[in-house]
Amino acid sequence: MEQTVRDLIRTIPDFPKPGIQFKDITPVLQSPQGFAKMIEWFALTLASAEKVDIIAGVESRGFIIGAALASKMGLGFIPIRKPGKLPFETLRAEYELEYGKDALEMHADAVEPGMKVALIDDVLATGGTANAAATLIHEAGGVLAAAAFLIELDFLKGREKLNLVADHHIYSLLHF
Amino acid sequence: MEQTVRDLIRTIPDFPKPGIQFKDITPVLQSPQGFAKMIEWFALTLASAEKVDIIAGVESRGFIIGAALASKMGLGFIPIRKPGKLPFETLRAEYELEYGKDALEMHADAVEPGMKVALIDDVLATGGTANAAATLIHEAGGVLAAAAFLIELDFLKGREKLNLVADHHIYSLLHF
Repeated sequence: MEQTVRDLIRTIPDFPKPGIQFKDITPVLQSPQGFAKMIEWFALTLASAEKVDIIAGVESRGFIIGAALASKMGLGFIPIRKPGKLPFETLRAEYELEYGKDALEMHADAVEPGMKVALIDDVLATGGTANAAATLIHEAGGVLAAAAFLIELDFLKGREKLNLVADHHIYSLLHF
Repeated sequence: MEQTVRDLIRTIPDFPKPGIQFKDITPVLQSPQGFAKMIEWFALTLASAEKVDIIAGVESRGFIIGAALASKMGLGFIPIRKPGKLPFETLRAEYELEYGKDALEMHADAVEPGMKVALIDDVLATGGTANAAATLIHEAGGVLAAAAFLIELDFLKGREKLNLVADHHIYSLLHF
């Protein structure tokens, strides 16, 4: 399962800027086998972990994986979005970029208190985005049952920053 | 099926600007029943229409619906994105906004020639976005087998602009 997905990932040098080796997951998504195996890995991994009540995905590639996963598991889906995109009352969490700041928002009524949430994104890099998303889920009253990623860039040590999720409940299919 | 989903849609007045009655679909997504019934409608509708080889979804809410649908149907998924987000060689289509222009991009290798593509988004409004997405699929060599939307705002006559898809292959679960 892992090798099928890994073989479909395309490395694009110097995107979005010089020096970055971007992991392009679109060939995985386009492949019926690749996409199905990827979603199967997420579903099997979460099923063997904590009980999960709902899936949260981070805009935009986390929407693709998270929504497919929620559908497969028969769960609901929470979109965590860039600022200004969600129309109802929102919570907001800022995070540091290399230069400056960015933020994520989630609807304040997205989780019921005590709900067990699995946080999904395509890549765990520095952990800034993932930690902001986890903070929103926590502040809304949700419990971070798990965080799962298609790719983890181990050298950036993002899982150390993601301290609202127990380390053994942070899962990645592929490590680079 | 239709009523369950319709009852979960929340109208937000004056978002993103005064005078617009925004249809907030996040309560549908959050509900396991609502989300499952919505995806079931898309899957049943497409299964009863033309043969479909792959699903294309428009950033960002079209990713949520389109990816869940592709997973359910065992198909691959093509993301159609805002400019600058896709790392490989892209095709680009511009479309008119009320003031100015915007554009969408798709990877040039996203479809094989002759592939039957179903275009998915949450809302069919003026048809500008949908027609730009359809143009990209057409230019890449794909065949527009169907276009399906959760919501169609009938008074904006978007389906008239979407002329790369036969009118009887444009489907919407809810009409407002």
